[in-house]
This record gives sequence, C-alpha cells and structure tokens, in this order.
Amino acid sequence: MTATAAPEHHDRTVDDVARRAQEVFDSLSRTVPGVRAAALRGAATALADHADELVALAQEETGLAEARLRGELKRTQVQLRLFAHVVSDGAYLDVRLDEADPDFVLGPRPDLRRSLWPVGPVLNFAASNFPFAFSVAGGDTAAALAAGCPVIVKAHPGHPRLSERTAEIVAAALTEAGLPEGTLQLVASQDAGVALVEHPAVRAAAFTGSQRVGQLLAARAAARPDPIPLFGELGSVNPVLVSAQALHERADELLGGYVASVSGSAGQLCTKPGFLLVPEGTDHDDAVAHAAVQVPEHRLLNPSIADGYERRVAQVLGVDGVRVVHAGGVRRGDAGDPGSPADGAGQAWVTPTFVAVPLDLLRRAGEALLDEVFGPFSVIVEYPDGTDLAAVVAELFPGNLTLTMHLGERESSEEQAALVARLGRHAGRVLLGGWPTGVAVTPAMQHGGPWPATTTDGTSVGTAAIGRFLRGVAFQDAPQELLPPPLRDDNPWGVPRTVAARGESLGW
Amino acid sequence: MTATAAPEHHDRTVDDVARRAQEVFDSLSRTVPGVRAAALRGAATALADHADELVALAQEETGLAEARLRGELKRTQVQLRLFAHVVSDGAYLDVRLDEADPDFVLGPRPDLRRSLWPVGPVLNFAASNFPFAFSVAGGDTAAALAAGCPVIVKAHPGHPRLSERTAEIVAAALTEAGLPEGTLQLVASQDAGVALVEHPAVRAAAFTGSQRVGQLLAARAAARPDPIPLFGELGSVNPVLVSAQALHERADELLGGYVASVSGSAGQLCTKPGFLLVPEGTDHDDAVAHAAVQVPEHRLLNPSIADGYERRVAQVLGVDGVRVVHAGGVRRGDAGDPGSPADGAGQAWVTPTFVAVPLDLLRRAGEALLDEVFGPFSVIVEYPDGTDLAAVVAELFPGNLTLTMHLGERESSEEQAALVARLGRHAGRVLLGGWPTGVAVTPAMQHGGPWPATTTDGTSVGTAAIGRFLRGVAFQDAPQELLPPPLRDDNPWGVPRTVAARGESLGW
Repeated sequence: MTATAAPEHHDRTVDDVARRAQEVFDSLSRTVPGVRAAALRGAATALADHADELVALAQEETGLAEARLRGELKRTQVQLRLFAHVVSDGAYLDVRLDEADPDFVLGPRPDLRRSLWPVGPVLNFAASNFPFAFSVAGGDTAAALAAGCPVIVKAHPGHPRLSERTAEIVAAALTEAGLPEGTLQLVASQDAGVALVEHPAVRAAAFTGSQRVGQLLAARAAARPDPIPLFGELGSVNPVLVSAQALHERADELLGGYVASVSGSAGQLCTKPGFLLVPEGTDHDDAVAHAAVQVPEHRLLNPSIADGYERRVAQVLGVDGVRVVHAGGVRRGDAGDPGSPADGAGQAWVTPTFVAVPLDLLRRAGEALLDEVFGPFSVIVEYPDGTDLAAVVAELFPGNLTLTMHLGERESSEEQAALVARLGRHAGRVLLGGWPTGVAVTPAMQHGGPWPATTTDGTSVGTAAIGRFLRGVAFQDAPQELLPPPLRDDNPWGVPRTVAARGESLGW
Repeated sequence: MTATAAPEHHDRTVDDVARRAQEVFDSLSRTVPGVRAAALRGAATALADHADELVALAQEETGLAEARLRGELKRTQVQLRLFAHVVSDGAYLDVRLDEADPDFVLGPRPDLRRSLWPVGPVLNFAASNFPFAFSVAGGDTAAALAAGCPVIVKAHPGHPRLSERTAEIVAAALTEAGLPEGTLQLVASQDAGVALVEHPAVRAAAFTGSQRVGQLLAARAAARPDPIPLFGELGSVNPVLVSAQALHERADELLGGYVASVSGSAGQLCTKPGFLLVPEGTDHDDAVAHAAVQVPEHRLLNPSIADGYERRVAQVLGVDGVRVVHAGGVRRGDAGDPGSPADGAGQAWVTPTFVAVPLDLLRRAGEALLDEVFGPFSVIVEYPDGTDLAAVVAELFPGNLTLTMHLGERESSEEQAALVARLGRHAGRVLLGGWPTGVAVTPAMQHGGPWPATTTDGTSVGTAAIGRFLRGVAFQDAPQELLPPPLRDDNPWGVPRTVAARGESLGW
C-alpha cells in the first residue's frame, strides 16, 4: 500500500494519508480565493508544460489515440482554468445575508449570514477511460480543490505510471502556488481506496466506474458510523431517438453520425449511444454497415475491459431474435504486437458491432439486452408507428446521463415539447440533434442523471460540480471581526451576495 | 393502511397513493410559477382561517402550550409564504445559459441551457414535536411543493386528528388554487411509510425524528434497486460554549437564558442546548437552580417520549461523578387529570433537570453522557483553564445543528476568529451569543449539519431547503419552441439567469 504525491511519501500508510489530508484542510480552507485560483491555473500550466511526456505515457498505458489524448489533456487544463474562474467569481459560495430585523413577522430576526464551505478531505476514484479528464487532475479533483477540499486520488490500475507522474507534476504546482503540501495525495491500491472510504477524516468520495464497484463503495460509505456521500457515476446507455421524419430527411447523415459516436475511443465513453430507436420498416442496415466497416481497429483500455466486452457482446448475440447488422471483431494481442509494449498480451483490438431488434424483443429480453455494453457496440431498436417514445424511455431506460432526440425539420409542436419535457425526467442532458459523446466543459453542463447514471443528482462535469463538495454554514449575530471574509460587511473578496432586507416581511 | 387527503380516500392503498402522486407530477411540474406561488399563499391563508380549530386539536394531542402552538402555526404560514416568494423569484432554478460558441477553446461549443427541476414525488415523515411547522404543511412540504413535487406526508401518530384535518384544509386550498387534486396526500401507518420509501414512484424522502428510525429508513432508501436520498434530521446536542470572561461579565443573564432555552417546550426541540461548557471553578449551581425552580410543569408530547426521557435521565444520573444541580420531576398522569383528555394515562408532566460534570468525566463516560436526551435536561460541563474548546467539540460533539459561543465584551481576536471558523466544521449554524432554540425562517438559515444532525448537508429550514428536491437538467441545441419556459430566449417567467458568453474562453 503506497501513497505518493512526491517520491518521499512512498512508505506512508492509508491512515497517514488521511490524517495528512485532515491537517492540510485546516490551512487550505483558510486560503484566499486568489491563491486557490492561481494554484489551479498553475496546475493547468504544469500539465501543458509536460504534455509530450504525459501523452506518451497515457498512450502506452491506455491504448487511446494520441489526438484524443492531447484533446483530453487540453480539456483537463481547461477544467482547471474554468474552476479558477469559479473560485475568483465567488458566486458558488451562495452568500446570503439576512439583516437583523426587529419587525420580522415572526418576532425579532437575528443577523444571519450563510455561505457554502468545503466539506473536508475528498477521496476521488479515478476512471479507466479518461486517464486525464476523470483521473488524478480531472474534473472531480478540480472541483474539490476549487471548493477548498484536500484531495486524495485513488489511481486507476489501468494507468499507474501516468497517475503517479501526473500527481507529482500537479502537487508540485499546487505547492509552488502557495497551497499546503499534501493538498493532493495519491494512493494506488484498491485496499487503500476502500479503507479511505471508511476513514473518519474523509468527508466525501467521488467515483466514476462500474455499477457493481460503485454500489459496493456506496454501501461502505453509507455504513460508516458517520455516513458520507459517494458521488458515483455508474453507467448510462444514452438512448438516441429518431423520428420517422428525421430519418426520412437525413438517413445517411444520422446513421453515419451514429456509427461515429458509438465507435469513437472504441466506445469506451460514458455517453456512448447504447441504443438507437428508429421507426420499424425503415432501411438502415446498409448505411450502418457501410459506415462501420470503415472504422479502424482500436485497442480496448485493458484486458479486464476486453473480457467484459466479449462477455456482454456474446450475451446479447445469444438472445433469440437479435439480428446482426454489422459484425465487428475482437483480436487478442500478444507481447510482440507492434505498438504494444511488454503488456500487449491479453490486450484486445476491436472493431464495432451493431445489432438490431424489434422493440417488443427488447422489452421481453430484459437485462440481457438492456444493460450497458462498455465498448464499440450498440443496438438499433425498431419501434412501431405511434409508439410513445417517452413512455418507452420511462419503462426501459429510466436513468441516463443523456437522451438524444432527432426530429424532422418542422416537427417542433407542443406535443414534441411535452415529449422533450418528459425525456428530461430520465436524463441529465437532453440533446435535440447531435450526439451525446463529447461533453462540453461549461457552466451549463449537466453530467449526471437518475440512477444508475449517477448515485445522486449532482453533476461531475461543468462548474456546478463544485456543489457536491460544499456545505452550508450560517453565522448568527457574529461580530464583524469573527466572521469569515465573504460574510463581512466590507466584502473583502468582492463576492456576489443576496440580501434579505430588514422590514421585507411587513407586507406578508 | 389508510391514506387521506379528503375523506373519500380512506380506502386507498399505498400503491394507489404513490401512483397518484406520480400521475399528479406530470401536470404539477408543468404549472407556471404564479399558480404554484398562489397555491402556497392559499394554503397559508387556509391555515390562518382555521387557526382556532387547529390549535385546539394540537393542544389536546401534543400537550404543547397554546401560545407556542399559535406561534408555530404562524411560522408555518410564513414558511409557505416565504416559499411563494422563492417560486416567484425563480433564482432557485439556477438557470445557466451557455451561448453556442464556434471559437470555444476546446472546439465548437453547443448551445447549452441548464436549470433545476423537481425530482418527482416526495415522501415527508412528520415530526412529533412540531405538529405544524415540521408536519403535514410544514417546511419540508412547503419546500417540496415550491419545487413542483407532489407530496405524500406520513402523519406522526402523536397528532393523528390534527394531521388529517390539516391535510384536508391544505389539500383543498391547493386544489382551489389550481394545483391538481392529489398534490398533497396523507398516509397514517408506519407500514405505509416504510412501503413508500421503497416505492418506485417516490423520488426523495424527508424525515425529522430519532437517529434509530432515521438510520432504518435511510438504509431502506439506499437498498432500493434505484436508491433515493433520505434527508434525515436525526438529533443534535447543540453545545453552548461560555468563556471565563463572558461568565464573569454576565453570569445571571447567561445562566437564566440557558435554563429558559433548555426548558422551553419542555426541551423537546432539536436545537435545545444539551451541554453548557463553562470554566471550572466558577459558581453556577445557585443561579441555574434559582431559574430552574421557577419553570412550570409541562406535559411531554406523548408517553413514548416520556419513557425515553426517563430512561435517558436515569442513565445519565447513574454515571458515577455526575453532580445534580437541580433535580426536576416527572409526574405521570392518569385519565382523570385536569387539562388531560381521555388519553391522560401514561402522559408525563415534567420540570427540568440540570447536572454538572467535569470535562474529563464526559470524555470517559462516552455515550451514556454524550447521547441526546430529548426533553428538559442538560449537562453543565466544567472545563479546565486553557482548554481548546474547538478541539473538545471536534472530539466529543462532531455533528450538530448549532454551536453557540458566548464571549466577553472585548474578546474578539484573531484567535477567536480561528476558533469560530473551526466550530463551523461541526455545526450548520454558529451563534455568537443568544440561544439556539428559536430558528429564524429566512433565506440565510441553515438547519442541518454534520452527522448525526442531518444525513446530508442540506437544510430543512430556510429557503435553501428547496435544493433537496431539485435536480439539474441541461438541454443542448434545442429549438426555442421545445425549451422549457425559463430557458427560452424571451424568458417568459422573468427569472434571473447566468450567461456564459460566446468567445469568453479566448483569453484562457
């Protein structure tokens, strides 16, 4: 069991790491916003300065393509910079000031000043499929640091050397910018991760990965003497609904876009469209097969994911009535494979597979068809004319990160507006056109939805992600000099504040 | 198993109730803010119109004093009116608009529009000790209705007739204001409550009560195939810390205020000060006893609470070294007692009890002394000179609704500011002077804190309470006519919105 933010920490125990985070919290939570924002920007710059080294390591450990990894590293820098803006702006503190009010309708009201504060040390389980953006310096880390929480990252075993190097680079940048040493720590083993979920010093955990592991960790977090939240992002099948008119208007564009969205990063994305719902009686096989056959072979992240992919694909293909539209392949590598280092054995290179089923078969087959397949595989579902698509979603796909609806040019009616509103109950993001893969890192992003998409209704992408690591504290009748800066009359940090004025209840 | 919002519903099953709530959600979530706000105000007015009848019922069923109940009913009306303001204002929707941006630093950004939406049907477990403000039409109900969620209330068995009557009055007012019938439903039995926590239609639950029951319900909520949050307010001991200088300056005022805060409503308040920490070697016994002896007898809410109170008081008094400062009494009534109806048997009339212990005894005795005593009982803790009070809180009282610090006139130093900041880690509300009982219903209130005060870091009092019943949904590239009103360009509801402008990332 090792924990490293810098080489000298290799012999630290889990308890040392947790206690260190708790100690650090004391000073970190007192840092002014400018210092925290500068530290986040410093981390982004440090990542950029080491891009070549980090991307090479990531390529080797994950098999993801260089262009994708460079884009992901850039996204990771942007996430850190975006949260630097969030910290400087201060709106996330949700500062509320109630003026003391002798005439309040329920009797004299005290002076009350509330804002949001960091919860304490945060444990962040890194994901396999985003070695930068959902890993050591990824979105959960950026959000927690922005909130003022020390972060302990449990590295993903799929990219251990990259994790360690990223932690070294980022921890050094944070320290150089004036944050306390130990603000970002890394642990490597699964045992350490589980032990930390149960450690009293840890106040919240974030996890991106499988439903099985997420449920296990959530159960541990809930069974503590003092339960903590586990913010899990556990899986999503991201149905894409296509109207007859849309398919009629632009079949090739739609079906080509679908194949590209399923196949990118070998389908190892949480927003990959697992199902495409099209009207029955339309011809789509040829266009899908035509696009699919042009997708080049791509390595899966690791042998364990390859095993799971092969198992799930075989399970779907074993369901009676499933029609294969395009059969992709899985080729197992060996140690000598070109482009594969010593660990090539057991790795798998894949091309995408597409199948089609009638809607009623999907209903009858249940989990065998409905559960997520992590990899370049998707199911085309043929629905009868007159199907209430929102009802299908509610019945078969109740919880998703995304739902996408492709309508025809002039199909925007009140009926469609009601359909879109109902879709919003079953996903965090509803797209009208386009494809769900590719998640914008912006204030209005929502990356989280009803179970099993996420364990809570928070988001792990976009600036609202900071809310998971904050808690409200109100100060009542405190003298100015005892108040935290954002609550003082002179507002030294210049944060936006909402004031409930004296006398406002007189008209109630 | 019965469920009533109006008399004709007496024979409905739990499943009927849950399905009804789900059906209602469809139309309720589409109501415009003006209608929902008017309905909340209508409910407040209806409560006021029936005040005499409701207060009389409450007095009979709970034994609480008329003045307290009239004040509580008024507070309940104010809560509803406050949430009407929240709904009309619309800031709670947290609307975020990202303009489509072809020049975004990570590549073209889509048009993204995010706001918060009701989670769906909410189950609200009413509390025994606030028959109005934390019951059928209480704060959790007001917050959930404001969010646009149908509400099912599990009535508390301590005031069944009041619950039924309140539900009738409020449900009628909501329907009259244009909300769908079934927006507010009531169930009576414990079995119904548990079954509803596990019902697929219920999307969130709120509970105010004991740690034992709260943990049981939270475990059920977490063990569902699709876990839901249980927002539990489970108990708090609300330590009050007094500095030597404060006691020196105003001992009588402080100790009298303490006795009053402990004794009000027979100590059956979640913010009752369970511990008063004073410097050792100061004389406080006489002043406490002098004030305590003047407190009139008060009925406890019900025989079950009386049993628990007697058991816990006996347990504390059984700890070796506990000194009795003032011994109150517990007098059991019988059916013929004046002021007591037919159910007088088993009810208990109490006067307050105060004990004192040295800090090191508190540490050694553990749970026997540290656990909450629900009723008019409190422990004076004598701490040695030089004690780090924040460290004592972290060690012995880690999670509270409130922490109160009484300092002397000129004791506001940087050291005290650091102390106050550390106290903020262990409570949702930190008071500098005054007493924690009496909770202002205002935007800046925080009524929720670290475990076991609440199960999550939400608040159940104040306008921020609405956040527990909302979830984020983003719409991507949606045509205007398919967007929900608050996200449309013309902003028909006139809600405040935050815009991320095109081109803003160019400088990153």
